[in-house]
Amino acid sequence: MGSDSPAPPPGERLFTPRARDGNARRGTLALTHGAVETPCFMPVGTAATVKGLTPRELREAHAQIVLANTYHLWLRPGRSVIEAAGGLHRFMAWDGPILTDSGGFQVFSLEGRRSLDDDGVTFRSHVDGSQHRFTPEGVIAFQEAIGVDVAMVLDVCVKLPATRDDLERSVRLTTHWARRSRAARSSAATALFAIVQGGLDAQLRERSARELVELDFPGYAIGGLSVGETRAEMYAMARRVAASLPDDKPRYLMGVGTVPDLIAAVDCGIDMFDCVYPTRCGRNGRAMTRAGHFNVFNAAYVSDFSPIDPTCDCAVCGSFTRAYLAHLFRSKEMLGPRLLSYHNVYLLERLMRDARAAIEAGAWSSFRDGALAETDG
Amino acid sequence: MGSDSPAPPPGERLFTPRARDGNARRGTLALTHGAVETPCFMPVGTAATVKGLTPRELREAHAQIVLANTYHLWLRPGRSVIEAAGGLHRFMAWDGPILTDSGGFQVFSLEGRRSLDDDGVTFRSHVDGSQHRFTPEGVIAFQEAIGVDVAMVLDVCVKLPATRDDLERSVRLTTHWARRSRAARSSAATALFAIVQGGLDAQLRERSARELVELDFPGYAIGGLSVGETRAEMYAMARRVAASLPDDKPRYLMGVGTVPDLIAAVDCGIDMFDCVYPTRCGRNGRAMTRAGHFNVFNAAYVSDFSPIDPTCDCAVCGSFTRAYLAHLFRSKEMLGPRLLSYHNVYLLERLMRDARAAIEAGAWSSFRDGALAETDG
Repeated sequence: MGSDSPAPPPGERLFTPRARDGNARRGTLALTHGAVETPCFMPVGTAATVKGLTPRELREAHAQIVLANTYHLWLRPGRSVIEAAGGLHRFMAWDGPILTDSGGFQVFSLEGRRSLDDDGVTFRSHVDGSQHRFTPEGVIAFQEAIGVDVAMVLDVCVKLPATRDDLERSVRLTTHWARRSRAARSSAATALFAIVQGGLDAQLRERSARELVELDFPGYAIGGLSVGETRAEMYAMARRVAASLPDDKPRYLMGVGTVPDLIAAVDCGIDMFDCVYPTRCGRNGRAMTRAGHFNVFNAAYVSDFSPIDPTCDCAVCGSFTRAYLAHLFRSKEMLGPRLLSYHNVYLLERLMRDARAAIEAGAWSSFRDGALAETDG
Repeated sequence: MGSDSPAPPPGERLFTPRARDGNARRGTLALTHGAVETPCFMPVGTAATVKGLTPRELREAHAQIVLANTYHLWLRPGRSVIEAAGGLHRFMAWDGPILTDSGGFQVFSLEGRRSLDDDGVTFRSHVDGSQHRFTPEGVIAFQEAIGVDVAMVLDVCVKLPATRDDLERSVRLTTHWARRSRAARSSAATALFAIVQGGLDAQLRERSARELVELDFPGYAIGGLSVGETRAEMYAMARRVAASLPDDKPRYLMGVGTVPDLIAAVDCGIDMFDCVYPTRCGRNGRAMTRAGHFNVFNAAYVSDFSPIDPTCDCAVCGSFTRAYLAHLFRSKEMLGPRLLSYHNVYLLERLMRDARAAIEAGAWSSFRDGALAETDG
């Protein structure tokens, strides 16, 4: 799947800035399976499927790139099946760019079932209890073998709050592993991004960013945020780290996916986002709008014949009412989660399209202020 | 919702035979929301949704008419919500014809929670235990109020095996209620079909058909089959009842939806079918093909990169492999049920399209024999 397509070697420019307005940036990311206009939101397809949605619907919702998870795909269906399918793109029938997370976040969430050493991390599968080992090299080899456009380095995640010692070790090992990952890289078709760690410690964050920038990756992610800290803490740290990263490389804030968080982070100079939030909300009956959220189970919606979001131009809002969604969720009909997931993803993709247009037009600050004033969460 | 559209009064011809080959018929059914070419398969949208599929996908799968259930819609969301939505078509965003079952079958399945008298049936809801009463008139009023194209009379269903007395009472009351239903009918937009009962008793079946034909309905269904009797018993009874029904009225065999059953019943002169089978199989990982079924959970499919049915031209078979379906089902991803339901419905719609073409071409018997030889169930 594109493994013979040309792509820039490490350090080469994937990212072309197109416009800026304050710290907000409008750019283009050139990946093996196509260009991605930034800022962008990446729907999450953990197990090689954005839950409930087809590739065609993702295109219609204006998703340009989707995320999948090394941890989950490693365990099921496993590398050999995906390779035999001709790569992850062909397996899941999505021909646009794919970014895979390295699995660091998932593995370090397996408390009591994983053991870290300086060389890697050994863990037991949540599926069947079998034992596996992630090393920086093994995780890169996996991501290259399944043919993704962007691979992430294996990073060391720490649960917050954490001691300074734990955070320091996380930063030290993450840099060490990033260096090994960079050396292990062998496919020009897969770009490799590093991940800045350091919790809420500004000094450690800046050290992490500096060390990784010295290694010259084509893109940088900010990991370990959006994990329970306050919004003010997250925004402050995102702003600080973004300022420590090179201007000509894409910046990806991992795990962020609400309307106000996306707006605030674009304002910090972030270019890329992913989050399960829109699809998880969609499965649970939580409707996202530019003005905030509502729960379709609330009694008020049983006979509300307006669309989910009257300002939305998606296919779901064009055809179906809140009352119908309320009926589907109350009846436990799977069309409900499907339709609401589509709308929620569409909403964030539309937000990013509007953000790109605002930055290009030099109207970012008024767009930002309007969007933040409109939303209640 | 079409309540002011013209439609034939009771007894008038909805059905135009186009061609016949042996007993198999090729016709057109003119309904308020459009024409339906027969023989046809109606996907079942019990609760105002064909499980997992959108109206757009139903159109793509060549479904011409969908079925919904009076029993379920009466309980949830209820008549007032559907009326306020502008009718069932608008509520579920399906603009083609809709047929609703009367709820007889569902209510009589509520053993221990319903009580039958000559005037109607009182029952407790499976949703919340609340008490409700169906009368022939009430059920017609409901179906007309929600604006369906074809309403079914409230029939009296008997669980097989049944005593002759029980079967006789079922036939007697079904005719009595059909007469009352016909008198209660008030909307020209909704055609009313009667339902032949009588179990596996040929005399009672013929009596039921004769009494209902005397009442001159625009269409006739055969109820109380496909409920556990052998295929040979079902086919024999369908053939006998079909021969007792007028040639110029549509004949609908309720609850039938496998490849061999559809072929055998078309061969008996049946024009319309409905069944939850393709969508229920789709949710459970059972793939339908013209050659039979298979379970996508079987180990063989984990690395089988062929489409579900190599002879199928549906969008799912065009994009996704058995291996991907196997992965989705093993990972409990809702895209699996969705994709497989689509394929299974498409398969039956394609079977009906091919059957129509074969009848038109005077090639029915060879088509029938080929289809039956190919399938193993």
